[in-house]
Amino acid sequence: MTNPTAAMLVIGDEILSGRTHDANTHFLAGALTGRGINLREVRVVADEQEAIVAAVNALRAAYTHLFTSGGIGPTHDDITADAIAAAFGVGISHRADAMALLTAHYQKVGHEFNASRQRMARIPDGAVLIDNPVSIAPGFSVENVHVMAGVPSIFQAMVASVLPTLTGGAPLLSDSLRVMTGEGDIAAPFGAIAARYPDLSMGSYPFVRDGAQGTNLVVRGTDAGQIAAAMAELTAAFAR
Amino acid sequence: MTNPTAAMLVIGDEILSGRTHDANTHFLAGALTGRGINLREVRVVADEQEAIVAAVNALRAAYTHLFTSGGIGPTHDDITADAIAAAFGVGISHRADAMALLTAHYQKVGHEFNASRQRMARIPDGAVLIDNPVSIAPGFSVENVHVMAGVPSIFQAMVASVLPTLTGGAPLLSDSLRVMTGEGDIAAPFGAIAARYPDLSMGSYPFVRDGAQGTNLVVRGTDAGQIAAAMAELTAAFAR
Repeated sequence: MTNPTAAMLVIGDEILSGRTHDANTHFLAGALTGRGINLREVRVVADEQEAIVAAVNALRAAYTHLFTSGGIGPTHDDITADAIAAAFGVGISHRADAMALLTAHYQKVGHEFNASRQRMARIPDGAVLIDNPVSIAPGFSVENVHVMAGVPSIFQAMVASVLPTLTGGAPLLSDSLRVMTGEGDIAAPFGAIAARYPDLSMGSYPFVRDGAQGTNLVVRGTDAGQIAAAMAELTAAFAR
Repeated sequence: MTNPTAAMLVIGDEILSGRTHDANTHFLAGALTGRGINLREVRVVADEQEAIVAAVNALRAAYTHLFTSGGIGPTHDDITADAIAAAFGVGISHRADAMALLTAHYQKVGHEFNASRQRMARIPDGAVLIDNPVSIAPGFSVENVHVMAGVPSIFQAMVASVLPTLTGGAPLLSDSLRVMTGEGDIAAPFGAIAARYPDLSMGSYPFVRDGAQGTNLVVRGTDAGQIAAAMAELTAAFAR
């Protein structure tokens, strides 16, 4: 598969403590699939510079793109921008264009543009800003690392800003067949069909409904004709 | 903090493609917090042996415990047991006690105990089985790595089986204060209070409700007295 690849890095103690359910990964996964970018790995780390720097440097080297969420607000626990600068070995400062955006915004809404809020204009050297139509404080991209907010509505708006600027691949297509049979009864013929389609990815996902075992068979790939052929084989073998 | 640490490894193409929402991490995070085990990192990787082996070896070396979910069923895409054996450099075979459990189970429910289902009795050498009261096919622990199913009801049952066998730490306590003020207005005094409690972790989580900005201030730690003192300071400073 020659599609671009991606990783997601979620920065947040609140996910690791179980306080908050991470919704951003699921949203990004769907958005990237539609764009033909292949999400290959996700990590969640704590609000600690050393952990963030290590994950950023491992993931940006391994994948075409890295998307991060969380830690770019005004409070003391928001350390993502500094960690990204450290990961790239570049400086960080209050940038004029970000300061101008935020000055105008807080003037308009009538809130003091104090030192804490000015922290949100601290951007690593060489970064490109990511537009934030929801609350103005920008995200940013450094090379292949796209740094976004953790609040889901803002994260989603930033994904909508940055995704059209990236080179996509052939859209990742999928189809599925739901059978009311346990995985163990169909594993061997399912595996045999999967082996005949090496360019497709086939998975089986068991479930229980009303006490009965069932399995969703999912076929993924970029070639619609191959997917249709595989689905026809699966239907002939398993549909009742 | 001297509490035991943990990581979670989710194995599953279906999470990365956006088809399925991972619910197991959130469940495990809450269960570990209650037990005084400090979840420090989560990774999600694809159903590929190389990716699984690399993540397992990195995480089992870095943390007291590693919990995995997914990939231990009967189908060709279930490769977790083999990957764990490869990560530890040990053999894997159909184990007698697991075969006996599954033979009895399938006899009772009247399903054929075929070669695909027998794959679920393949256990790395030296592992300890994890009880699965839901669907019998066991999980297993190799040293500090606890390998469990991806289906949430089975994952949760396996966590309930394995967690009481692990040494916990002082329970991780938390309290929170909800204020209807933007983060930017409270960041400086909040940071000053946080700096006076170096043994506690304090975070702020913004939200928008009915068009108004609010912030949840969360205090975490193991010392109930310190948490109460910090909460009193936060309440005095910010509660309206």
